[in-house]
Amino acid sequence: MARRTYFDHNATTAARREVVEAMLPFFRERFGNASSIHLFGQENREAVDAARAHVASLVGGEPEEIIFTSGGTESDNLAIRGAARARRRASKADRIVTSAIEHPAVLKTCEDLGRDEGFRVTYVPCDRDGVVRLDELERALSPATALVTVMLANNETGVIQPIREIAALARRHGIPVHTDAVQGAGKIPVDAGDLGVDLLSIAGHKFYGPKGIGALYVRRGTPIEAISTGGSHECGLRPGTENIPGIVGLGEAARISKRELPREMEHIRALRDRLERSVLERVPDVSIAGAGALRVPNTSNMLVGRVEGEAVTLNLSMSGFAVSSGSACASGASEPSYVLLALGFDGAASQGGIRISLGFANTGEEVDAFLEIFPRVVERLRSLSPIR
Amino acid sequence: MARRTYFDHNATTAARREVVEAMLPFFRERFGNASSIHLFGQENREAVDAARAHVASLVGGEPEEIIFTSGGTESDNLAIRGAARARRRASKADRIVTSAIEHPAVLKTCEDLGRDEGFRVTYVPCDRDGVVRLDELERALSPATALVTVMLANNETGVIQPIREIAALARRHGIPVHTDAVQGAGKIPVDAGDLGVDLLSIAGHKFYGPKGIGALYVRRGTPIEAISTGGSHECGLRPGTENIPGIVGLGEAARISKRELPREMEHIRALRDRLERSVLERVPDVSIAGAGALRVPNTSNMLVGRVEGEAVTLNLSMSGFAVSSGSACASGASEPSYVLLALGFDGAASQGGIRISLGFANTGEEVDAFLEIFPRVVERLRSLSPIR
Repeated sequence: MARRTYFDHNATTAARREVVEAMLPFFRERFGNASSIHLFGQENREAVDAARAHVASLVGGEPEEIIFTSGGTESDNLAIRGAARARRRASKADRIVTSAIEHPAVLKTCEDLGRDEGFRVTYVPCDRDGVVRLDELERALSPATALVTVMLANNETGVIQPIREIAALARRHGIPVHTDAVQGAGKIPVDAGDLGVDLLSIAGHKFYGPKGIGALYVRRGTPIEAISTGGSHECGLRPGTENIPGIVGLGEAARISKRELPREMEHIRALRDRLERSVLERVPDVSIAGAGALRVPNTSNMLVGRVEGEAVTLNLSMSGFAVSSGSACASGASEPSYVLLALGFDGAASQGGIRISLGFANTGEEVDAFLEIFPRVVERLRSLSPIR
Repeated sequence: MARRTYFDHNATTAARREVVEAMLPFFRERFGNASSIHLFGQENREAVDAARAHVASLVGGEPEEIIFTSGGTESDNLAIRGAARARRRASKADRIVTSAIEHPAVLKTCEDLGRDEGFRVTYVPCDRDGVVRLDELERALSPATALVTVMLANNETGVIQPIREIAALARRHGIPVHTDAVQGAGKIPVDAGDLGVDLLSIAGHKFYGPKGIGALYVRRGTPIEAISTGGSHECGLRPGTENIPGIVGLGEAARISKRELPREMEHIRALRDRLERSVLERVPDVSIAGAGALRVPNTSNMLVGRVEGEAVTLNLSMSGFAVSSGSACASGASEPSYVLLALGFDGAASQGGIRISLGFANTGEEVDAFLEIFPRVVERLRSLSPIR
């Protein structure tokens, strides 16, 4: 088979070699249950504590503000359900303010709280560049707002949202703020203190850590309820035997990510910018979603006119290139991306969205090879298309 | 340091060598997101499907009846919350029937549904041997019962519960039945069809699989709602990027467990029975919880008079032996075990409970070494104890 090139790092990443090496001893040698009082258990507490410190450092929190979960979706569910319920119990506030471009883990959770638990949800629109509108968000806030939840970086466009400004607006009303930073961590510096948020979700596998592990930062003193019940693990907020290999792997991914971020960002941004420039030069009728906004350096969402994104994705896959149309979480569905629709693109244009998301291991040669193939794929598909 | 001996397999187990080997390629080489439509994603679907088939085979279900979760606690929460809510929505039934000796993942979930969602919970007592009383359970059932949830084997005593009989009683009323089989899978044959249950929880790390992964068997047609929201993974019942290494590891653990079970059960039972006989011969004032009942072959819960279980556990740990007082999930708390109290032991007796839980790698030599140490530890602690 031909060489394969992975340009879909917003879907998932390969764990770093050091991450897997750090995890390995905890499957068979140091396998104890961290809740056991004997040596086999206690010797693992230290490893869990160290990982917690690394994760805290990555997101600008304290170790005791980190709750380990099974991933980004669970972190989002815990943050939104847990904080909205806690606040309503204390203050009767029953409104949730979110944006129209959130990941399904946030959108569907808000919808569910609206449908099943009587919360009223406001979906703030974004502008043409995919930035959540601050003026609309501000208008949506009131003393009845239980929670604001807006993502740090959009998974489809990479557009960075004005979370610091959103948190400052919410703080005037004393409203807690959650941000889904799953697509931010490991791509840009993330500092919960600096952003001013109370809750922040991350997922290991999006920044070269293992799948099946994530974390929720919970600022000290933030009212929040557990959403599942069992043992008293993780300060009573997340029951279940600790996934020690996963926690250790997440910690190692966080440690390395923090150290390497400046170098990796620069490398990835240079590749992404060259790729975009070259595509725009070589392929007519392409526009870049969110090009006018701040974006994470690895993501490019190209709207390619007169083709279906899914057809492009499948053709590129046959040539050995992995890219995405829409997000992996919505794949299978060939509906136009709700994120691109929210940016104001029409249904036809939104179906032409190709998401390329680079990683630190990608090379200039891979970008060059892509630039050879991509225009040909688009041209062939356009020649077959009934839309001219 | 002295040789260490692990007799706490009900808390957690070391993953089998084959399990770790099966997982390894999925961290870095085959790392794709199983929801991606490109090659990197699609090549992993097959691995997930194979693992699902192995897990289904272990619990006597069909592959499409297996939902992967992050572990036993999540499986229990999904089963109980998901099925009780679905049934109440359909039929107004609002009673949950469970037992007094369930794991906290079940007990606290039922309590929570009682406190926060208006369900009425009945806790059926057990007899002196730790077997849930069928007569009391039958009396508790009515058309208003939304769900019955009783564990397959108790984590502290190893006592096997009459799930087949319980399911038959429930079926007369058309009530769905969940069993927490976390302490049964890998220790005794488990067959959801034969048991007649609709929902059945397992956790990988209790039978030599990885931590952070579990499964819920959901019989085809069982009404159940998701308890978290996001992507449409796992038939819409459990959102979040699939933990592929964990799933593959769970599958491999299930495959080997099914194959090795008869041989391993016999080996472990012989060790356990010899250990119990010898302790009863050598140490006065010891009784075995659940000795008159059917038990999983690996577990012995010894009530040692005139000592505190936690002191025995710590002393044994210093001698290199890992055992448990109470369950790992309740550790830290030096309260008497609620399970032993439910068997009718008084508070003082219940504090003397020592749980020994053996695994396939334990040897006769380890049991011999334990039998040298254990009577001395008990004697010394008794000589220091104010209770004579």
